[in-house]
Amino acid sequence: MASTDKTKARLPRGFADRFPDDIRAVEEMMAKIRAVYELYGFEPFDQPMIEYTDALGKFLPDQDRPNEGVFSFQDDDEQWLSLRYDLTAPMARFVAENWDKLPKPFRSYKWGWVFRNEKPGPGRFRQFMQFDADTVGTPGVAADAEMAMMMADVMEALGIPRGQYVIRVNNRKVLDGVLEAIGLGGDDNAARRLIVLRAIDKLDKFGPEGVRLLLGPGRWDGGKEGEGDFTKGAGLDEAQIEKLIGWLELPTQLAEVFDGRSGYGLPSPFLFPEPGFKAAEASYRFQFLHDRLYRPGRVDNINWESLLGLIANFQEEANYILDGTAELAEIADLCDRAGYGPDRIRIDPSVVRGLEYYTGPVFEAELLAEIPNEEGQIVRFGSVGGGGRYDGLVSRFRGEPVPATGFSIGVSRLMTALKNLGKLGSSEVIGPVVVLVMDRDTESLGRYQKMVSSLRQAGIRAEMYLGGAGMKAQMKYADRRGAPCVVIQGGDERAKEELQIKDMALGEQLSKEISDNAAWREGRPAQFSVPEAELVDAVRKVLDAQAAERSRAG
Amino acid sequence: MASTDKTKARLPRGFADRFPDDIRAVEEMMAKIRAVYELYGFEPFDQPMIEYTDALGKFLPDQDRPNEGVFSFQDDDEQWLSLRYDLTAPMARFVAENWDKLPKPFRSYKWGWVFRNEKPGPGRFRQFMQFDADTVGTPGVAADAEMAMMMADVMEALGIPRGQYVIRVNNRKVLDGVLEAIGLGGDDNAARRLIVLRAIDKLDKFGPEGVRLLLGPGRWDGGKEGEGDFTKGAGLDEAQIEKLIGWLELPTQLAEVFDGRSGYGLPSPFLFPEPGFKAAEASYRFQFLHDRLYRPGRVDNINWESLLGLIANFQEEANYILDGTAELAEIADLCDRAGYGPDRIRIDPSVVRGLEYYTGPVFEAELLAEIPNEEGQIVRFGSVGGGGRYDGLVSRFRGEPVPATGFSIGVSRLMTALKNLGKLGSSEVIGPVVVLVMDRDTESLGRYQKMVSSLRQAGIRAEMYLGGAGMKAQMKYADRRGAPCVVIQGGDERAKEELQIKDMALGEQLSKEISDNAAWREGRPAQFSVPEAELVDAVRKVLDAQAAERSRAG
Repeated sequence: MASTDKTKARLPRGFADRFPDDIRAVEEMMAKIRAVYELYGFEPFDQPMIEYTDALGKFLPDQDRPNEGVFSFQDDDEQWLSLRYDLTAPMARFVAENWDKLPKPFRSYKWGWVFRNEKPGPGRFRQFMQFDADTVGTPGVAADAEMAMMMADVMEALGIPRGQYVIRVNNRKVLDGVLEAIGLGGDDNAARRLIVLRAIDKLDKFGPEGVRLLLGPGRWDGGKEGEGDFTKGAGLDEAQIEKLIGWLELPTQLAEVFDGRSGYGLPSPFLFPEPGFKAAEASYRFQFLHDRLYRPGRVDNINWESLLGLIANFQEEANYILDGTAELAEIADLCDRAGYGPDRIRIDPSVVRGLEYYTGPVFEAELLAEIPNEEGQIVRFGSVGGGGRYDGLVSRFRGEPVPATGFSIGVSRLMTALKNLGKLGSSEVIGPVVVLVMDRDTESLGRYQKMVSSLRQAGIRAEMYLGGAGMKAQMKYADRRGAPCVVIQGGDERAKEELQIKDMALGEQLSKEISDNAAWREGRPAQFSVPEAELVDAVRKVLDAQAAERSRAG
Repeated sequence: MASTDKTKARLPRGFADRFPDDIRAVEEMMAKIRAVYELYGFEPFDQPMIEYTDALGKFLPDQDRPNEGVFSFQDDDEQWLSLRYDLTAPMARFVAENWDKLPKPFRSYKWGWVFRNEKPGPGRFRQFMQFDADTVGTPGVAADAEMAMMMADVMEALGIPRGQYVIRVNNRKVLDGVLEAIGLGGDDNAARRLIVLRAIDKLDKFGPEGVRLLLGPGRWDGGKEGEGDFTKGAGLDEAQIEKLIGWLELPTQLAEVFDGRSGYGLPSPFLFPEPGFKAAEASYRFQFLHDRLYRPGRVDNINWESLLGLIANFQEEANYILDGTAELAEIADLCDRAGYGPDRIRIDPSVVRGLEYYTGPVFEAELLAEIPNEEGQIVRFGSVGGGGRYDGLVSRFRGEPVPATGFSIGVSRLMTALKNLGKLGSSEVIGPVVVLVMDRDTESLGRYQKMVSSLRQAGIRAEMYLGGAGMKAQMKYADRRGAPCVVIQGGDERAKEELQIKDMALGEQLSKEISDNAAWREGRPAQFSVPEAELVDAVRKVLDAQAAERSRAG
């Protein structure tokens, strides 16, 4: 069959195999996330991985050609199909298609692989798993507030202590106002807007100078022209860039104006979550400032001149911004009343989310823990999930408004973080009892086969060695598989209807320890004979002894 | 964002959305299958869905062009990528790539979606899920026997009683011998051989006449030229077809020769699993016959003339056939000794499996239960999984022999069967307690939000109604979600710090029953007031009462 040329076994770039430890860790984690989603009343749904390209829509950057950003191919009838790039777009298609049949609001959760036809990098894959929850058919920000609270609950269900994570919330309407003001409104600018969003998203990583390059001509990874990879810029002019950067730096400037004072009789601890201003609350405070401009009696001791200068830059977009900040204020208030304070959920204008379809509040779940990165540097782990309101995504199929909001967890990334924090992998997997094969005639094989069958019938994980190797290699195999013990029966034992059991954990222990538990060792020999009929009981005793040993060890 | 044209929400042909009941049923089933795989000592592994097209190999029919059979597309560097069409080919790539690092034999299980770019039909999808187990690096048929036994255990773990399923085993070597004899050996005939395999696979469905057409010029679904879809034939000539059909009918003819007698002092009950011959054992018996031809003293009362006439047709391929049947005999023997009799595992020459990569024993798990099909006819459910030995699949990467065998379960198909048999869906899912929204000011919303938060903190599934509708629609929503009760607080109750709880199950019951349990009803009113502070306790009492009610009911 096939050809005689040797094919090279290799994976395409950006794809990865998964091993048992990671698979079990992901499952342990997903079961905990799922329990929270269920507790909140969401139900599991699932869409296929392939959709019509037009149904997924063009919400990723650089999608002028069909095969950029997404993996696409033509069907028999020449229609373009794509692999889903997230779980939200297919869900929107599903909801639109089944709208009349579904309870409204429609609350669903879903998990699965998504695909991005992008340049892979360290920790950045072309196939990765997401775990989402969405509420469709609800216009009020109470649904957005619920998403933020649920994500906080997910983090705590995963064992991340309060203070070690934060759910950051912003509102796309605020940013959209600014973008409108610099002439990037309208459908024609969608692609450019997306590049701008992605650029702003990099503020933490590259600083204002890096963002300036990404907003303008583009940026070389190596720092100089020709060094490293080149990322295309948004091509904004100087005036546009200055206004945008000015807006991004507004929080810092406001902090200088207010100089860290608080105590303005505000309705919510969200306004001043900690002594001194932080960038995180700027957007919300901007509304507060705007309000105060018209009610100056409520606030005094402010450097009005400096403040009015700042605000004057953003007269045009004030309505958008006010709209957005009012929503943020309501989210903050609802969270607050439900007992989710600013130690868990914060307003932060630097949150943008790199997808074009968001229309209102956006969220990001960030781990504050400091963890070694791929290069071994200790860094704040950062984002493990995000989401937001996408009021247009279902509507584009239905021609009527269908508001929606949702959250998506990056499964592999979160799992990596949890493993680093020692929050996963606690579940104990015992290797199989291995029945060694000393003779290969059918009679002997049948007898070994019967041994494993009887162990399995007793619920004991077991296998007969199926390779072609000798005794030594079989022992090595049993060791690699983490076998608790092996069962040995050669011709002599067979004649006596006996077998030998070798306790692998004890063997390991004996080679580590020296001699001071000789008495105990005598009570539990590393290898012993039993009548063949007593196999199951004898193996069970070994397993029990090992379990007791492990629980003593801690 | 996006355009103002309305996009049509629809799925491509052959793809399907999944709903909560099915998702939960599949999970329940997969957990049981997985427990058996674990018990046998297999470990979970996972490969990505995209591989290099050449790494997957061409083992599906009609693959002259890249996009037939599989979904394929080109990467940036012009190399062809494909979505996996099964889990075996990617696993073979993985094993070849990591061979030196893996314990040998390598025992893995894996589940996931696979894709076929084929004509979809009723119950036949272009994306479906498989759940596989494989042993790589083991040449002996003990590994094949283990696969067959494990599948029998899987069926019983799923609640299918003995006698309601059978694991059928055949050997590709036998069939390969026959194909060689009619001139279809060698690499050049791989594609044609595959069409022949698929044709034989249809014997149950279309009968010998249908198979004759598929082996020859092709077959029209409607029965006449131009009616229904056309399936291309293998293009064999009359002599080839006659020889192949003769071989397929051999079991029936042998049965006539032997005329149902038994009692030949045979070594295994596999030889005569029931009074009278059945097609299922023909291959195995063929070996028996061949042996007996040279030891005629052992068997008498046989119509030798007729028998020799039959056997004479297959002189050329006798060696292949004997080789294959000897392996089958050993598998039968090993199963027998481990206590898996012919009521569970049978030798059957009609099993072929429609994939080109099998090289030795092949298996099929069949449900014998009669279940309504898509058209409502009562039919034997048939195959729910299969597999076999594929000694060439890893070797083609490594240039050294790496024997392997495995089994694959068709998840959706098996789930459908189990649901039909009432073996799934027993797990009870309670809907969320719904807190109705009577007033929408932030103060009220915050209060409702606090109620759901406190219910969730007590581990009670709950949600605040997040839609925009009035009281009646909210009650309807709660009903559709299967809410055990709803919580109501309007202005009057809020003033008194009280709330109303409405027991939905009781409401339903009251509308069904008439009056004879009035006393009981008084003890458990369908709607009642409690102080707001006692919400959690009151809801818990309702849930407990409903649970007690359900356990009384059944």
